[in-house]
Amino acid sequence: LKGNHRRNLEVLRERLASSGLDGFIVPMSDPFQNEVVSPHFNRVQFLTHFTGSSGFVLVLSQTAIFFTDGRYTTQAREEVDQTLFEIRGHWVQAIHPFLKEGLRIGFDPWTLTVTHRDHLKMSPVSWISCVENPVDQIWQNRPPQPWAPLKIQGEEFAGESSSSKRQKIAQELKAQGLDAFVLTAGDSLAWLLNIRGGDVDRTPIPFCYGVIHQTGCVDFFIDPKKVSFAVRDFLGADITLHPLENLESFLKTLKRVGFDVRTAPFAIVDVLKESVSGKDPCLLPRACKNAVEQEGARQCHIVDGMALTKFLYFLQHHPYDDGFDEAQAVLKLQSFRTGGKHYQGDSFETISATGPHSAWCHYHTKPHTNRSLKKGEMYLVDSGGQYLNGTTDVTRTIILGGKATPQQKNHYTRVLKGYIALATIKFPKGTSGSHLDILVRQYLWEEGLDFCHATGHGVGSYLSVHEGPQCITPRLVEAPLMPGMILSNEPGYYLEGAYGIRSENLMLVQECKGLKGFLEFETLTWAPFDPNLIDFDQLSLKEKQWLKAYHADVLRLLSPSLSEKEREWVEGLIDVFTPLKPS
Amino acid sequence: LKGNHRRNLEVLRERLASSGLDGFIVPMSDPFQNEVVSPHFNRVQFLTHFTGSSGFVLVLSQTAIFFTDGRYTTQAREEVDQTLFEIRGHWVQAIHPFLKEGLRIGFDPWTLTVTHRDHLKMSPVSWISCVENPVDQIWQNRPPQPWAPLKIQGEEFAGESSSSKRQKIAQELKAQGLDAFVLTAGDSLAWLLNIRGGDVDRTPIPFCYGVIHQTGCVDFFIDPKKVSFAVRDFLGADITLHPLENLESFLKTLKRVGFDVRTAPFAIVDVLKESVSGKDPCLLPRACKNAVEQEGARQCHIVDGMALTKFLYFLQHHPYDDGFDEAQAVLKLQSFRTGGKHYQGDSFETISATGPHSAWCHYHTKPHTNRSLKKGEMYLVDSGGQYLNGTTDVTRTIILGGKATPQQKNHYTRVLKGYIALATIKFPKGTSGSHLDILVRQYLWEEGLDFCHATGHGVGSYLSVHEGPQCITPRLVEAPLMPGMILSNEPGYYLEGAYGIRSENLMLVQECKGLKGFLEFETLTWAPFDPNLIDFDQLSLKEKQWLKAYHADVLRLLSPSLSEKEREWVEGLIDVFTPLKPS
Repeated sequence: LKGNHRRNLEVLRERLASSGLDGFIVPMSDPFQNEVVSPHFNRVQFLTHFTGSSGFVLVLSQTAIFFTDGRYTTQAREEVDQTLFEIRGHWVQAIHPFLKEGLRIGFDPWTLTVTHRDHLKMSPVSWISCVENPVDQIWQNRPPQPWAPLKIQGEEFAGESSSSKRQKIAQELKAQGLDAFVLTAGDSLAWLLNIRGGDVDRTPIPFCYGVIHQTGCVDFFIDPKKVSFAVRDFLGADITLHPLENLESFLKTLKRVGFDVRTAPFAIVDVLKESVSGKDPCLLPRACKNAVEQEGARQCHIVDGMALTKFLYFLQHHPYDDGFDEAQAVLKLQSFRTGGKHYQGDSFETISATGPHSAWCHYHTKPHTNRSLKKGEMYLVDSGGQYLNGTTDVTRTIILGGKATPQQKNHYTRVLKGYIALATIKFPKGTSGSHLDILVRQYLWEEGLDFCHATGHGVGSYLSVHEGPQCITPRLVEAPLMPGMILSNEPGYYLEGAYGIRSENLMLVQECKGLKGFLEFETLTWAPFDPNLIDFDQLSLKEKQWLKAYHADVLRLLSPSLSEKEREWVEGLIDVFTPLKPS
Repeated sequence: LKGNHRRNLEVLRERLASSGLDGFIVPMSDPFQNEVVSPHFNRVQFLTHFTGSSGFVLVLSQTAIFFTDGRYTTQAREEVDQTLFEIRGHWVQAIHPFLKEGLRIGFDPWTLTVTHRDHLKMSPVSWISCVENPVDQIWQNRPPQPWAPLKIQGEEFAGESSSSKRQKIAQELKAQGLDAFVLTAGDSLAWLLNIRGGDVDRTPIPFCYGVIHQTGCVDFFIDPKKVSFAVRDFLGADITLHPLENLESFLKTLKRVGFDVRTAPFAIVDVLKESVSGKDPCLLPRACKNAVEQEGARQCHIVDGMALTKFLYFLQHHPYDDGFDEAQAVLKLQSFRTGGKHYQGDSFETISATGPHSAWCHYHTKPHTNRSLKKGEMYLVDSGGQYLNGTTDVTRTIILGGKATPQQKNHYTRVLKGYIALATIKFPKGTSGSHLDILVRQYLWEEGLDFCHATGHGVGSYLSVHEGPQCITPRLVEAPLMPGMILSNEPGYYLEGAYGIRSENLMLVQECKGLKGFLEFETLTWAPFDPNLIDFDQLSLKEKQWLKAYHADVLRLLSPSLSEKEREWVEGLIDVFTPLKPS
């Protein structure tokens, strides 16, 4: 395999030299800027064998550099041949010293957003846009493109017709003085047209582009073979289908057209005349779920909570002496989800991590890392489902066998107190997730501890499990939380080599009952926390009351689907959380 | 008086017309961008009679508009003749509709920072820079310029020689590839040269500009009559004095010179060649007080706390039947401060507000508003002193006569809980005040309440009572808190027409003992809180413990200067705050 990578690099360098290029950049991205890059577009993996989700390659005539972020440097050292590639930090910070004046560096304009291109432009090299990607030219046995037919997302799930959505966006464009907007995010088009696809792993997004006009009509660019007659009928006369290859010539005909720098490939913006940088007009209406989507979220979370609760019951009552391992746990959890109402599959690759593996924020079991679940170890499961009526994402950490150390309890309890502080906050309109982030960290900070990821991300409605603009993060992001937005609340703590803790529920932003101008969170996720990991002395009376009420809701909502024994187990938890006295 | 304003406006319009101008803008600013504008430069007050601290006038041929922010609209309606001026919100948001395409609008380039100029540039008018300000040309009986001689700020207060400070800045310039930096903030120059002035009200800042070179030498532009022979000797050979009128021709000789858009007047940047936008290099070292400045802050706060504590004792034991009023209270407090070690005067105009006046965040007693202190009313005092070893700023709210309503107690206690949450937080390096701001608001938010000002501002060392970059605010400001920074912690709550509450101490950022990479606040301000305003049932055990310890420190630090009765009073407070049981 390593010989292949050396040979590929040689062939690529020859090709670059014959095109008069001193180098070429290979971001890990597809032309649609999806978060999950399919093997067909994963040129970084082809060149380097790296299997993580963040990578960027710069090939120069004598050297090649593999850039990744802090989460992945260990993995990169294992997977990437360092006689071929130097390994460095994130390309945004680390690439500039390699981009020396006078070099001619090629790039594929479909693999870079305008934002990334603007960042690279600051360097003194000459950037050469390549019509054909030289990596594709040398790629033998390239995996095929994902291919899934479009499906209709009925109004019983979407809650609003496409034509109504399009009319509102059209008004927005008029107000901004724009003739049209190029939609470059697949989830925006899926939302706008009330359709779903299947070209992105575990995410019902089709590979497509679109242009919405001031009239509300849409020119929709997609492989026509994905669009059945039924879907064509559903889309109707206001949606004009085009093959993807006609996009460029079509874009040239547009005037006063908006684009979003965060998702528009440079190739698209390059051909626009009179273009205006703006925000994807579907972003906010997609993020603010309507009443039907909100009710769908509530319903699918009950179905999903039932599966996870059965799984947690199963784990709590497992003997842990039969070699039951992380990979089997993934399948076991999936078996509980399978057959659930409207269930379509998982919403991302399940994290099933035991012992020290739980301390990796993004651990995925592989055959050579797979470990058995053992008594006395922590087990962390982060998983979610795609349902026709919503997308779920939930994390629980438990102590296998029930006996936790005081240190484990201390860490788990501080994470839990942070979770509750965020879940119960009431905040005025205009507040961003950046303002709220400290709430989950404050109890860890008391002991000089912290965790290195964001607290919460937006979640779509049978769409991406990560969506914007809403987020809860220490980065200072101007994105006020608004009613109908769904966010995760997932504080954690990771003790390298020992164990990791994360507790995650999804929450729905709601108008605050009784307090004008204020918002609050409605909890969507229902599954027990592990009382064996809680130091009850650290909890305030209010926190105990919250935990008792939460578990009473878990019982009330899930009990119709639980077995007698499972129900008894959850009932017992309510008693555990009965507040005795304040601490 | 109103006739004068009408006549002035007529004369100004004639002058504008004869210069071919359709209008002229008059910001409330001096050429040195000081926060407090002296009467000599207050062209807005001259034109409109407005006495507040935020205003901006646009004079057009047929209309004139007075812009101010929300805090001042009521006052503007009282003070400004609305037959002459339309009153609008803050100019940054409200001016653009008046700037119609084709108009020729004049401006004085000394009255606008680059930031403001860039904002105005977005409008489609033609901007004409006026060498002479037409308002000055018609201003009869203009108040004279403030004029105060320079004084030496000895190393016993400054803690570091000017030459050492200048060498560090010089290194910084080299690292940035700059030949020089134009210093346009008076407090930066006062800090850098270890001098103080007196040209700004209650703030020891001189009117001056400076240029620091890569050599560490400084060209210093100031009225030479302000610089005695002793000060010239102190400044030494590396500081070259120039009269202010030579600035422009000097600036033209510079290459690769930095400037700060937030404080540089457009007039200065306009004459620079090869200029580079950057951050005032004195900003951070000035904000991060050295060990001597920190110790000075501790000492002057003890002296200042003694004065305020005596004043609070006096108020608590006053009969309130003798007509003792807000203005007398200001003088009384000043009398306690006078004679204190290193005391130089107040650091800003004292806010002495009783009853409904306390609900105005920025109330200043005037003869026609002055009110007597009455039993059963709230009294809010926000004041501070300038000391050679530091600057203070403190607010206390008390209930006169000691009997508060449950509502008053509820509001006061929620503000106090917020104060304590911020005062006791431990946070990792890299945290900005924007992350911390929610801590003081969370308990008000529980009842749908909030306050409309920032939580904290930076404070100088015998310099401005408001300094940057440090701040604690819901605006998302990227300004990590660093050891040595002094900030106010001043949450409040204002019930219009009834009462206002604010509790304010200054805090010093310190490395957190025992927690590597973490910071915490050291309290600087010492004066009792009013226990009659506290609902003890709302306090946690930790909060009661904090209050008890704080008042024990007040007693310990101030008792040498307190009378027997004052000491007994503070001693009694410690007992009041003795925690009985958790709530």
